[in-house]
Amino acid sequence: MDASRFSDLHITQRVLLGPGPSMVEGRVLAAQSMPVTGHLDPDYLKVMADVQDLLRYTFQTDNEVTISLSGTGTTGMEAGVSNFVEPGDNVLVAIIGYFGMRIAEMAERYGGNVDRIEKPWGEAFSPDEIEAALAKKDYKLLAVVHGETSTGVCQPEIKAIADAAHKHGALLLLDTVASLGGVPVEVDAWGVDICYSGSQKALSAPPGLAPITVSPRAWEALQNRATKVTNWYLDLNLLMDYWGEPHKYHHTAPVSANYALREALRITAEEGLENRFVRHAEMAEMLYEGLTNLDLPPLVPPALRLKTLTTPRLPEGMNEAAIRGMLRDLYSIEIAGGFGPLAGKIWRIGLMGYSARRENVRLLLAALDDLLG
Amino acid sequence: MDASRFSDLHITQRVLLGPGPSMVEGRVLAAQSMPVTGHLDPDYLKVMADVQDLLRYTFQTDNEVTISLSGTGTTGMEAGVSNFVEPGDNVLVAIIGYFGMRIAEMAERYGGNVDRIEKPWGEAFSPDEIEAALAKKDYKLLAVVHGETSTGVCQPEIKAIADAAHKHGALLLLDTVASLGGVPVEVDAWGVDICYSGSQKALSAPPGLAPITVSPRAWEALQNRATKVTNWYLDLNLLMDYWGEPHKYHHTAPVSANYALREALRITAEEGLENRFVRHAEMAEMLYEGLTNLDLPPLVPPALRLKTLTTPRLPEGMNEAAIRGMLRDLYSIEIAGGFGPLAGKIWRIGLMGYSARRENVRLLLAALDDLLG
Repeated sequence: MDASRFSDLHITQRVLLGPGPSMVEGRVLAAQSMPVTGHLDPDYLKVMADVQDLLRYTFQTDNEVTISLSGTGTTGMEAGVSNFVEPGDNVLVAIIGYFGMRIAEMAERYGGNVDRIEKPWGEAFSPDEIEAALAKKDYKLLAVVHGETSTGVCQPEIKAIADAAHKHGALLLLDTVASLGGVPVEVDAWGVDICYSGSQKALSAPPGLAPITVSPRAWEALQNRATKVTNWYLDLNLLMDYWGEPHKYHHTAPVSANYALREALRITAEEGLENRFVRHAEMAEMLYEGLTNLDLPPLVPPALRLKTLTTPRLPEGMNEAAIRGMLRDLYSIEIAGGFGPLAGKIWRIGLMGYSARRENVRLLLAALDDLLG
Repeated sequence: MDASRFSDLHITQRVLLGPGPSMVEGRVLAAQSMPVTGHLDPDYLKVMADVQDLLRYTFQTDNEVTISLSGTGTTGMEAGVSNFVEPGDNVLVAIIGYFGMRIAEMAERYGGNVDRIEKPWGEAFSPDEIEAALAKKDYKLLAVVHGETSTGVCQPEIKAIADAAHKHGALLLLDTVASLGGVPVEVDAWGVDICYSGSQKALSAPPGLAPITVSPRAWEALQNRATKVTNWYLDLNLLMDYWGEPHKYHHTAPVSANYALREALRITAEEGLENRFVRHAEMAEMLYEGLTNLDLPPLVPPALRLKTLTTPRLPEGMNEAAIRGMLRDLYSIEIAGGFGPLAGKIWRIGLMGYSARRENVRLLLAALDDLLG
């Protein structure tokens, strides 16, 4: 083969304001490029222990079972479903957008008897609505999406929802892919049993890892399964033998990605979760105000807004894809369109992690002013 | 939390001569740290197309379905099994070591009716032995490990084995995690239907991605499944909608890892596969000779040796773990012990990709001479 067909890698520096990946600090990229070492090297076991400690801080939990899975955020969802749904288990999924639909689809693939309750895209459930559904059947698992990336809604009152689940004997699985590190996620205080996220959103590490944490109650349920976990790669029993003693080989860990995640989590700890939530909220407020001034008001009512992802409503007839193309080609800014029932009707603008900076918000608003003005 | 508990990342530079990960060139680490971009950015779509082209070269195939999976080498195995084994399918696994056992275990988890044929660790099958087993039942899939990392055996005569599988109506799944890029793997010429590998061995990219290629015959079998693929993350139907047109979102691709894989594959193409195979063979010969002089002769007979992974037989009563510890702590060299029936009886010494260099072989032999002499 003529290898000269393949040039040096060229990647345009983008201002990443889509629904993820978010921008990654130089410190994190530098950590990612430290020498590759063995997945059982003492240096790497230390990295794993640090990642676990820092994830416990970030998830606000004392759960022993707190690790990063060796795949993208979607593996968090798949691990949550495959470990806790056995063939024949009753599963209730509260759907407020695309990612809830995906959980339901996965749970069916693993043999669950899935019931769905749904809200129109852009809305959220009250705890009472969820409790009413829980009361109808013996569910093993209730699945809820905290930050719905397809709509920009943050499902509120997770604690009340967890209480309802437990009252009815169900475990609560919570998707925090788009929220962890940007808005409060209090795994222990809320009583969440299985909680997962992705490395590439408000944590601002590169995509490729899925943090997950599992409560003692959920761990016990896992030990009481009648069948083996179908998904060998994501079987938490096997994974914990590697992450904990005896550090038994399971798969060759993505060491570079975990170097990067450790550094991104260290930055999170240095900033402090509270400061980080304030920063995300302030940047979101600045964006809401600017968008409203451009006649692009947020779709979602204030109380339900996901601070990390804003979804302005677009005027009818706007060629929104063309404007996104100009944002990219003229200003090197990435934002995303809507999809499903919101295709063409909204944009999805992420202010996540290292992307959530004043200069990025101001640039986006100025660019939109140029293009729409 | 007191973030000062977590120091700057410290990773000791190791000479990685275990069964993987192998050492990674600076060019590849530099590529990995290019700016993160969106998984649908035009620059990234170009990266994906290049990765596909370069993987076709490396696998020696024209298969359209040739991609990198967003997980470690184990996801290659899991994708191969989960896409091509439906509940009730008859599966034959030819086991020459640990990784064949793992395939069988996975196939059972996905509902396959699994038959195993086994050889003692350190041996391989003849095509006739495999054909005799294939003749006993209608198998949908025959699974074979090409380079068995647990023993250092390279299963020969894959073309004859593929012919036997096809004669009996079975697909051939081949594990090339430890062989691809280091010894010949001729997917099309041999007639392999499903072939996967890992990024972190003879390809010398960081761990975290699993190259896979699927023949048109296997793709047709996938289209004829009666049930959906249980594993949503690794469902090749969904993945191909992202890798090919319409580039539909499936998961947020690990862009940094694919930058690195592209660069590692580019290095492979620049060197040329034939030169690469010669280099691996020469370095292996140098190692065999040096080990034999140290009274540590290879376990595996010459015709079956996997050039990328050498398994010297250890004298009885040797405290092999202590010597590996000294290699690591005094010389910063990583090699691995044996496990299963070969625990304490062999070492596993990898000369893979960028690790397969004269200076590394010479250093290891000199260090062993110091410690054993």
